[in-house]
Amino acid sequence: MDSPIITLTTDFGTMDGYVGAMKGRILSLLPQARLVDISHDIPPQSVVQGAWCLRRAAAQFPQGTIHLAVVDPGVGTSRDALVVQTRRNWLVGPDNGLLHLAAQDAGIQRIWRITPESLAASGWDEPQKSATFDGLTLFSPLAAWLARGESPAALGEPGEDMLPLEEEAPWIRGGEVLGRVLFFDRFGNAVTNISREMLEGHRVVRVELGPMAAVWGLRESTRVVEAVFCETYEDIPLAELSEPPAKKPGESWLPPEETVGALFNSDGVLELAVYSESLRDAQGLRGGEPVRVTIKPAS
Amino acid sequence: MDSPIITLTTDFGTMDGYVGAMKGRILSLLPQARLVDISHDIPPQSVVQGAWCLRRAAAQFPQGTIHLAVVDPGVGTSRDALVVQTRRNWLVGPDNGLLHLAAQDAGIQRIWRITPESLAASGWDEPQKSATFDGLTLFSPLAAWLARGESPAALGEPGEDMLPLEEEAPWIRGGEVLGRVLFFDRFGNAVTNISREMLEGHRVVRVELGPMAAVWGLRESTRVVEAVFCETYEDIPLAELSEPPAKKPGESWLPPEETVGALFNSDGVLELAVYSESLRDAQGLRGGEPVRVTIKPAS
Amino acid sequence: MDSPIITLTTDFGTMDGYVGAMKGRILSLLPQARLVDISHDIPPQSVVQGAWCLRRAAAQFPQGTIHLAVVDPGVGTSRDALVVQTRRNWLVGPDNGLLHLAAQDAGIQRIWRITPESLAASGWDEPQKSATFDGLTLFSPLAAWLARGESPAALGEPGEDMLPLEEEAPWIRGGEVLGRVLFFDRFGNAVTNISREMLEGHRVVRVELGPMAAVWGLRESTRVVEAVFCETYEDIPLAELSEPPAKKPGESWLPPEETVGALFNSDGVLELAVYSESLRDAQGLRGGEPVRVTIKPAS
Repeated sequence: MDSPIITLTTDFGTMDGYVGAMKGRILSLLPQARLVDISHDIPPQSVVQGAWCLRRAAAQFPQGTIHLAVVDPGVGTSRDALVVQTRRNWLVGPDNGLLHLAAQDAGIQRIWRITPESLAASGWDEPQKSATFDGLTLFSPLAAWLARGESPAALGEPGEDMLPLEEEAPWIRGGEVLGRVLFFDRFGNAVTNISREMLEGHRVVRVELGPMAAVWGLRESTRVVEAVFCETYEDIPLAELSEPPAKKPGESWLPPEETVGALFNSDGVLELAVYSESLRDAQGLRGGEPVRVTIKPAS
Repeated sequence: MDSPIITLTTDFGTMDGYVGAMKGRILSLLPQARLVDISHDIPPQSVVQGAWCLRRAAAQFPQGTIHLAVVDPGVGTSRDALVVQTRRNWLVGPDNGLLHLAAQDAGIQRIWRITPESLAASGWDEPQKSATFDGLTLFSPLAAWLARGESPAALGEPGEDMLPLEEEAPWIRGGEVLGRVLFFDRFGNAVTNISREMLEGHRVVRVELGPMAAVWGLRESTRVVEAVFCETYEDIPLAELSEPPAKKPGESWLPPEETVGALFNSDGVLELAVYSESLRDAQGLRGGEPVRVTIKPAS
Repeated sequence: MDSPIITLTTDFGTMDGYVGAMKGRILSLLPQARLVDISHDIPPQSVVQGAWCLRRAAAQFPQGTIHLAVVDPGVGTSRDALVVQTRRNWLVGPDNGLLHLAAQDAGIQRIWRITPESLAASGWDEPQKSATFDGLTLFSPLAAWLARGESPAALGEPGEDMLPLEEEAPWIRGGEVLGRVLFFDRFGNAVTNISREMLEGHRVVRVELGPMAAVWGLRESTRVVEAVFCETYEDIPLAELSEPPAKKPGESWLPPEETVGALFNSDGVLELAVYSESLRDAQGLRGGEPVRVTIKPAS
């Protein structure tokens, strides 16, 4: 193809110009590259959310697309850059799990490891001043190289494997599944690490969210939230919205708290949500919160 | 044209990968498509803001552009997809009013209704697993089909009309116009449903924003905000900024509240704003707030 | 090149459709233009942040790229549009300092001033209704004109110079450098106007952030924050994270405040940050805060 597609997924936002610099670098190396933004709004350093975003998007792109992703809490430390060739596409990014879901999904064929030194030795791209910005000096030239149809073998060494995404598996004990909030989607819904498959043959009796000791049954707490298990978003019950009572000026009135619903989303993963609102904001969540699902064998 | 333009307008944000998936799907079906982002930051489920955004942008694109828009509170319920052919462009999206302003603006010529079933029957695009994501499985293939220069007649049935945008008209009684805040722009200014045309032959005496009963004169309230009517943003008066008084450590000092200005914006619609700040944040507004304009015949 | 690149940098956000309208206008005038988004998330009216973003990004784009930037607190007032030809690229935007850093960086060759009147007189582009939106009616046609390979001389007059970016220089007195927070990056780190070069031959003894009178040594204050000078982000010390003490239901517990680190960033400029958090949010900063660096000659 004359105009190879390079997609971009980062947690850089755009306002500091880093993403713009990467786009410029790629176009300087390969003017005919076709850049497609997937996202630059991955929450800072959220490798897990970047990995989920990339997997969903990459599954739909044409054969041979090059996906460049940078969400990299370890920037500046010693960590290889990866090039992963799958049955469907090329993945370029740090070896920290970010590429793992998309790679597994598409079927890993070969892996290469590229270091700043091996890239410099290849003579591809001129050295940049900004030595601490791997997105510009390491990952962008890699993507442009692949988009030229060249082999990664010229820039680095074959690798054996890649780091998996560190997703804590839920703990299943007796009639309970103990999991966690992985991240929040754009609407503030809480995505957990509990899948529909894990519960196969069972039905959900109760879903709870709250402090670990309380959710795990070790301590009482007033802060445990019990969610209503639902089939679809439309089934999440609204709180009864009463009219604000008549009150004197200056008095404040708070609407009743909305009910939290729990449902399996289109990825087959348990998600917690409130109707037409952000659960994250409504409950002041930050991610990582324990979730307990009580189950019974389906009869 | 070899490379037809497809624009994208959604309330999906980008961080969940849904927009990326749509882009990938379109490029898989039509590799030469030229994708142009209009916005993915439409506030969640704000059909009215999506409609205004699309109208403003679509008016400037070349003849024949395909505008794909998805802001769809009713996703998952039974609702047709629309293809609207206008004198200027093609509009693709849900039949919920989202396309209506842009369609009227460009001059509606023909309408088609496409269902998941009629699309599947056409054999265009392969079925996707994610059955609940219309943006991917329904709207994206439609846009790619049109961009290939094909007729929508092959994918669905002609339609008679489309749902209008449900914009409550202001209520004019005696010397008053009673309207509402429709949405907030990027700067937190409140855009109302009161246009300059409605007030023709009159001059504005007073603009008030606040709780409905109070604004409509049924009850007293301390929370009614009176706005100063202005010609331009530069005319919005600053509050008198006094120097913070000398105070003991730990004491806090709040600057005086800024004056709210009201003016007709470049769309000819009444907008409320504070100078260099977000009115939405400053007043804790959420949209839908009643606005009362007191008018007198121009003499 | 058949498809000239036009980049876009604005503070418009995307949800109001203004950016979409600009893209449509450019593509209507020059269908083969290749649009590349740098950012539309420049904080509203932050000319200084727009200038820094543009400089970083523009440095990487191919020779001949046209960079269109609009961050314009003075829109609607009388102010010329600039076209700046540099050794590397073309810059188009308001004459308010926004283009200045990128222009200096690339080496200014020639400057032109274009007014709405001179543009209209040229006959390039049809008049638009929306007379108050310079991004649409003035800057976009200029960019499209340049991308056609035409000379700006046809649209306006040569200019002598451009307004510099109003960046207050730090004040160096005795063993102290008194500067300011210029803006915040995407992570909420505070970027100052104090560069590594200014301190050459010295070592940093202390970095303080706080109210002006206090930081400048004129008054005591409990609100001065002392930062720990670090070499890299990884060196910023974490606050000692103690376990939340046992407490009764309803009691709240606040974690200890995180230590503020100060370091020279990849631009060689002093930046203040907290580990894995937004300093802006943690300290409630708004930009402009005074910063004092105490230095000693390196021995």
